[in-house]
Amino acid sequence: MFDFRRTCNCNALNKSNVGQEVTLSGWVHRRRDHGGLIFIDLRDRYGLTQVIFDPKLSKEIHEKAKVLRSEWVISIKGKVRPRSEGMANPNLNTGEIEVEVLDFEILSPAKTPPFSICDERIDVSEDLRLKFRYLDIRRGEICKNLAMRHKAMLSVRNFLDSQGFLEITTPILSKSTPEGARDYLVPSRIYPGNFYALPQSPQMFKQLFMVSGMDRYFQIAQCFRDEDMRSDRQPEFTQIDAEMSFGTPEDLFVIFEGLLKKLYKDCLNIDIPTPFRHMNHKDAMENYGTDRPDLRFDMKLIRLDDIAKKSSFSIFQEQLKAGGVVKALCVKGGADISRRVMDEYTAFVKEFGLSGLATVKRTDKEFTTGIAKFFTEDLQKELLEKTKAENNDLIIFAADKEDRVNQSLDHLRRRIAKDRNLIDKKKLEFLWIVDFPMFSFDEKENRLKSEHHPFTSPNFDDIKLLDTDPVKARAQAYDIVLNGYEIGGGSQRIHSSELQHKIFQILNLSEKDIQNKFGFFIEALQYGTPPHLGIALGLDRVVMLLCDTDNIRDVIAYPKTQKATDLMTASPSEVSQKQLDELKLKVQK
Amino acid sequence: MFDFRRTCNCNALNKSNVGQEVTLSGWVHRRRDHGGLIFIDLRDRYGLTQVIFDPKLSKEIHEKAKVLRSEWVISIKGKVRPRSEGMANPNLNTGEIEVEVLDFEILSPAKTPPFSICDERIDVSEDLRLKFRYLDIRRGEICKNLAMRHKAMLSVRNFLDSQGFLEITTPILSKSTPEGARDYLVPSRIYPGNFYALPQSPQMFKQLFMVSGMDRYFQIAQCFRDEDMRSDRQPEFTQIDAEMSFGTPEDLFVIFEGLLKKLYKDCLNIDIPTPFRHMNHKDAMENYGTDRPDLRFDMKLIRLDDIAKKSSFSIFQEQLKAGGVVKALCVKGGADISRRVMDEYTAFVKEFGLSGLATVKRTDKEFTTGIAKFFTEDLQKELLEKTKAENNDLIIFAADKEDRVNQSLDHLRRRIAKDRNLIDKKKLEFLWIVDFPMFSFDEKENRLKSEHHPFTSPNFDDIKLLDTDPVKARAQAYDIVLNGYEIGGGSQRIHSSELQHKIFQILNLSEKDIQNKFGFFIEALQYGTPPHLGIALGLDRVVMLLCDTDNIRDVIAYPKTQKATDLMTASPSEVSQKQLDELKLKVQK
Repeated sequence: MFDFRRTCNCNALNKSNVGQEVTLSGWVHRRRDHGGLIFIDLRDRYGLTQVIFDPKLSKEIHEKAKVLRSEWVISIKGKVRPRSEGMANPNLNTGEIEVEVLDFEILSPAKTPPFSICDERIDVSEDLRLKFRYLDIRRGEICKNLAMRHKAMLSVRNFLDSQGFLEITTPILSKSTPEGARDYLVPSRIYPGNFYALPQSPQMFKQLFMVSGMDRYFQIAQCFRDEDMRSDRQPEFTQIDAEMSFGTPEDLFVIFEGLLKKLYKDCLNIDIPTPFRHMNHKDAMENYGTDRPDLRFDMKLIRLDDIAKKSSFSIFQEQLKAGGVVKALCVKGGADISRRVMDEYTAFVKEFGLSGLATVKRTDKEFTTGIAKFFTEDLQKELLEKTKAENNDLIIFAADKEDRVNQSLDHLRRRIAKDRNLIDKKKLEFLWIVDFPMFSFDEKENRLKSEHHPFTSPNFDDIKLLDTDPVKARAQAYDIVLNGYEIGGGSQRIHSSELQHKIFQILNLSEKDIQNKFGFFIEALQYGTPPHLGIALGLDRVVMLLCDTDNIRDVIAYPKTQKATDLMTASPSEVSQKQLDELKLKVQK
Repeated sequence: MFDFRRTCNCNALNKSNVGQEVTLSGWVHRRRDHGGLIFIDLRDRYGLTQVIFDPKLSKEIHEKAKVLRSEWVISIKGKVRPRSEGMANPNLNTGEIEVEVLDFEILSPAKTPPFSICDERIDVSEDLRLKFRYLDIRRGEICKNLAMRHKAMLSVRNFLDSQGFLEITTPILSKSTPEGARDYLVPSRIYPGNFYALPQSPQMFKQLFMVSGMDRYFQIAQCFRDEDMRSDRQPEFTQIDAEMSFGTPEDLFVIFEGLLKKLYKDCLNIDIPTPFRHMNHKDAMENYGTDRPDLRFDMKLIRLDDIAKKSSFSIFQEQLKAGGVVKALCVKGGADISRRVMDEYTAFVKEFGLSGLATVKRTDKEFTTGIAKFFTEDLQKELLEKTKAENNDLIIFAADKEDRVNQSLDHLRRRIAKDRNLIDKKKLEFLWIVDFPMFSFDEKENRLKSEHHPFTSPNFDDIKLLDTDPVKARAQAYDIVLNGYEIGGGSQRIHSSELQHKIFQILNLSEKDIQNKFGFFIEALQYGTPPHLGIALGLDRVVMLLCDTDNIRDVIAYPKTQKATDLMTASPSEVSQKQLDELKLKVQK
């Protein structure tokens, strides 16, 4: 049998190897027939090497090579020689040499793939690429991303190990709990009618480690949510999940800034400066309309309620009377934004429920055009002071309910930054958002919901507000934001059993639900629980940013579609009646 | 607020710290009142430190400390001082010092735990320990095992990274396939009546990585099997799962011997010699009756068909006529085994279906007692030659179907070794078992089954046997055995689409099943597949052996019972009607 064990990979040979006999194995990347010779670029994950079938060396070998086509897998034995004068390829590590083939074996022929493997850009649907995922990975881009993901995971693990964190695996066959998103369920065969749930996060398990005295835990954990998906979500996703005892958020920030510093150094050889900035939730919402501001560019939201009230623009008056707000963006040099583009922006913010936008331009003397006439000279002065507008700037106003104004101007701010190239792609703007509110009021369900999750500790100063005005209570929760993406979040946890019970009551859970779903946890807290806190970083998103892609499927080996299907294996799929019978399940038509 | 952030852990202080002011946080391990002083051993994961509440230093603090009980969580500020003459404890890292408390805070009181945390041995059921798993972990033993597991996983990851393997996560929401054990199913909400399955192993996913050209893959992967469990099995278990291209078993053996060498060095500081021994499957069955022989002691099975045939012992004759075999163990010095013990051994082998055992003892002159009289003088000579029996040895015979004899004598061999202390506990006998058969005949289902799995390549020399006598075909499969435990196994895979299809046919799968379940995979092999091979090591079992325990639940943070329940969270459990309705599922009564 032909010994296909390579002596090196396809990215290894250079001038220093000239004269050596080697074995290379890989895929036929490109094939050229030229002057009676057959040239093949042989490819593996590591690179390309040019190999030559020369009838002068062996007629038989050259003849046998004629059948070779793209993507066939072959193994060759040959001799390394320098490329002829002027034929070196400086873009390849192996560009100075080629290998003349003395013998070879076809290890596997290949059907013509449904899309090109060797062209950098292909024009096929993502669905086709997902169906033939193994070929899409072979194209190189996804393979590189997966290698980056591997590097990132290993960097995280070694860093957290160096900080005394132990990686401990928690169960996938877990328990369904009512708070949070929809669970994936797993029917039990031994106890028909009972179900496991796939974990949405290892939250209670990791807090119980702290009760155990494990002190510092982490896990790169698979988590699951059965939700109708936005484009950057997957039904299964991966968290860098950690928990520590006897610390405060400041301790945790130092550790996780260290983790991100190490990660960027290991993966991209970039030094990121620490410590990161902090911003409280209220300021983020006020100045950026979002709790994950992109700080790579300026252009804050400017509150103009006072000025708007004094203007004669009736829409402002109406919105303010209805409890709304007026906020604005000042676009530097934005006077050149055309009417057509402004129409696009208006259509864009309508997606977020805003009825319209108003504008004024600044000349070196005054505000003109748009709604300028509704501002008196004095009011214009006030506007100038607030907006710090300069000649040729454009002010864009939005008036509506605060939520809607914030959401619209946040999106518009980022859209304009993109359109006007305001973003320095090389910048990495990390930011901790702190002082989140404990609860938000859910109008649909007519009850309070946890802004973070029900295990989050209130700010110790605000515990008294829980009885009087819980919506005002701040949580000891924090998010970490990078360039406008929330890449993680966490909190100081409740370590008092009574307080934990009270929070469930505030969330309007029945005593029965509290006991059934969380009873064991509330009891656990009574056996001596240290103060503890934690964080979870979204690994998929972190890797996405490391790989500079905005498609989460590009950093997952076998992703699901937005309909939660795997097109490659055709999953989910029907199962046998025997399987359903064993689970005592019947599917309703 | 009291600042509970410790300046060091409870295992850090020694004589060099005398005079320093420190903050320690932890659990009250033991409390002693002595001469008006309160002594507390403060405990965390790292160790113990003795702290003293002295009324001479502060009456108030001493008074406040009177309420402290076992397992309360406290934080103390104090000053390090040397212990008084003769009071040092050489068994503790902190045994030369103590800390006089200047101030402290109760972070969390504790109910009396259901079992003792500080006693080394407790006499409670495993069920109670599992229900309060977080307290059982706190007791220390499990915590140490989990720390070892962390260390082992990190060692494996760094080693495989150094060998060019990339860790790539494969889906948990996977596809149900008919071969192998029973799947756990996950109902799809979006496609009612369709199901995902939790993976029994990432087998096809990892082979597709090889089709992708990923070259070397690994993953510490969660796997799932819905089987009625033996005591050392869990419904979810963890595999060190790897696959590589362009290699042969010999290449793989070198890498994974390196992995185990590194693992034992990192975890236990033991140097294990490599390369490991090889034994073919046939020899293992012949000489040890099992494909996972414990080589820490000798006492091979000895085949005695020829001698038995010539003896006048009718049971031997009957069994041989019925197609059975006669094999024996020679127990060195076993003449002292009492009748009572032999009766126990007879009862023991009955569990494996064997009807009985026969014996003879060796004196320096002859075989006596038991069935000795059925052997002529000449036959005794032959028996002596075969068994190499010495004075005071005991020969134990078994006669029955080969399977039954092998299984019985394998178990008896290990039982006797344990009873007679033949096992050097320090020995690590690693062994590769090779040349497994491709198939075994399943009498129940009246068809061939894969001995390893259907992706295993036949020995290239035996491919022709597939058409004529498939049971004789050897597989390119291998197991790795340590001290009688199978800790992993793998194989060279089929990389030809046609051969893969043929194997499914031999396994009697219908063309429809082949297409529905494996169609995508058989197609994938047609696009240029390199020769590849892989292995999976059972992480749980490897860690079990590292931790020197024989209970798999001792190395898993939150294990399931043999009925696949989690006693701590009470899972599986009932779910709401709303959840079932969303999945369009009905539970049959």
